[in-house]
Amino acid sequence: MATPETTTQLPHDVHSEHHLTSSAMLQDVVIGLSDGLTVPFALAAGLSGAVSSSGLVITAGLAEIVAGSIAMGLGGYLAGRTEVEHYASELDREHREVKEVPDKERAEVDELLADMGLSEATRRQAVAELTADPEQWVKFMMKYELGLEEPDPRQAPKSAFTISAAYAVGGLIPLSAYFFTDTPRQGLLYSAIITLVCLFVFGYFKSRMTGQPPVAGAVKMAVVGALAAAAAFGIARLVGGA
Amino acid sequence: MATPETTTQLPHDVHSEHHLTSSAMLQDVVIGLSDGLTVPFALAAGLSGAVSSSGLVITAGLAEIVAGSIAMGLGGYLAGRTEVEHYASELDREHREVKEVPDKERAEVDELLADMGLSEATRRQAVAELTADPEQWVKFMMKYELGLEEPDPRQAPKSAFTISAAYAVGGLIPLSAYFFTDTPRQGLLYSAIITLVCLFVFGYFKSRMTGQPPVAGAVKMAVVGALAAAAAFGIARLVGGA
Repeated sequence: MATPETTTQLPHDVHSEHHLTSSAMLQDVVIGLSDGLTVPFALAAGLSGAVSSSGLVITAGLAEIVAGSIAMGLGGYLAGRTEVEHYASELDREHREVKEVPDKERAEVDELLADMGLSEATRRQAVAELTADPEQWVKFMMKYELGLEEPDPRQAPKSAFTISAAYAVGGLIPLSAYFFTDTPRQGLLYSAIITLVCLFVFGYFKSRMTGQPPVAGAVKMAVVGALAAAAAFGIARLVGGA
Repeated sequence: MATPETTTQLPHDVHSEHHLTSSAMLQDVVIGLSDGLTVPFALAAGLSGAVSSSGLVITAGLAEIVAGSIAMGLGGYLAGRTEVEHYASELDREHREVKEVPDKERAEVDELLADMGLSEATRRQAVAELTADPEQWVKFMMKYELGLEEPDPRQAPKSAFTISAAYAVGGLIPLSAYFFTDTPRQGLLYSAIITLVCLFVFGYFKSRMTGQPPVAGAVKMAVVGALAAAAAFGIARLVGGA
């Protein structure tokens, strides 16, 4: 389950827009891996407390990985498509408003500039310049009134694929331990060791990437995984034992 | 698994900022429900193709719901906290830069205004006004250079709780069918009916909320759920049957 983060809507430094393609992909990998390492791990751990067959843990784990990666990938793809359509419809609306109610739109530009802190004299001049060319005027409204950047229509399918694949890869890591062990309990032991190490390493690099303290980030990531697994283990034990 | 959407970073109309609190909550409910209705449904459907005990489907389903809602909630909480820290550290940095390298920062303001389409004469005047008060200058840099809005520190725990709860509620809907049926196959039938109806209704209102065509949105939502469930069913059948 993705933490509330996103590829296409992360605030980004306007100076680093040319880095966007590669970092968008990296962010998608991070989104997919975060969830892929956590949820299938916790589900498998939970079932290990309730069933005696490793095969069952593997079956459920693979079903979860497939379900999760389709839900994330396809859901992400549709959300991306919606964003593209939303941008296009807002763009149409702004073009129409600039043509049909220019005085109202001009007042909105003035209001935005006042909000930035410009004096009335400067605003009068700035409004005249910004509204001289309708294309530039609409571009200004989209970006500064609505806070919308033009989404790249090729981004949605790419993101969907990357997130899905990262989720599947992340999910297979904790599950792999059950392939090579005889009982779910043994599987759980190795799965927990492998996964917590991966979450730690992953949290470290994820935090470094976003400029956060890396060791704290590594610990947080591992703690989320461990808590989710412990809770799933507890509930499955309770229900499965009843 | 959340689609790449987010509460705190959605582009929003500056005119509707006062609606933010209630709509942030609604968005969190949407994020939690989208995933909660989809993934536990698909997992349970998958297991229904591979096991003969409804109890096992329920155990795995509950473990998934617990794992998923903790991963989403706690993950979201930590992401929100990181955002608050990130904002604070960027704010410090801008304050320092405005004091230590004011000429470089002034050039950045000028560049942003040039990008908006202002003439050199207007820019000269505007830069002088925007950089007259250091507080306002820093606020301008945060918002227009870095694209950062000040996050509400109380939002992270609220969002975490709402997303978790919505995920759990969403997940219990498809799972509830297995409580009242004797075999996983019967459970799957009722679970699919209930869940697809819920996904359809939910997709309808979600799309209306975001101004998209509601029927198309309803169909998309139901299709994602159905595909995820069918794929999970297929893989569990394949593995569980081996």
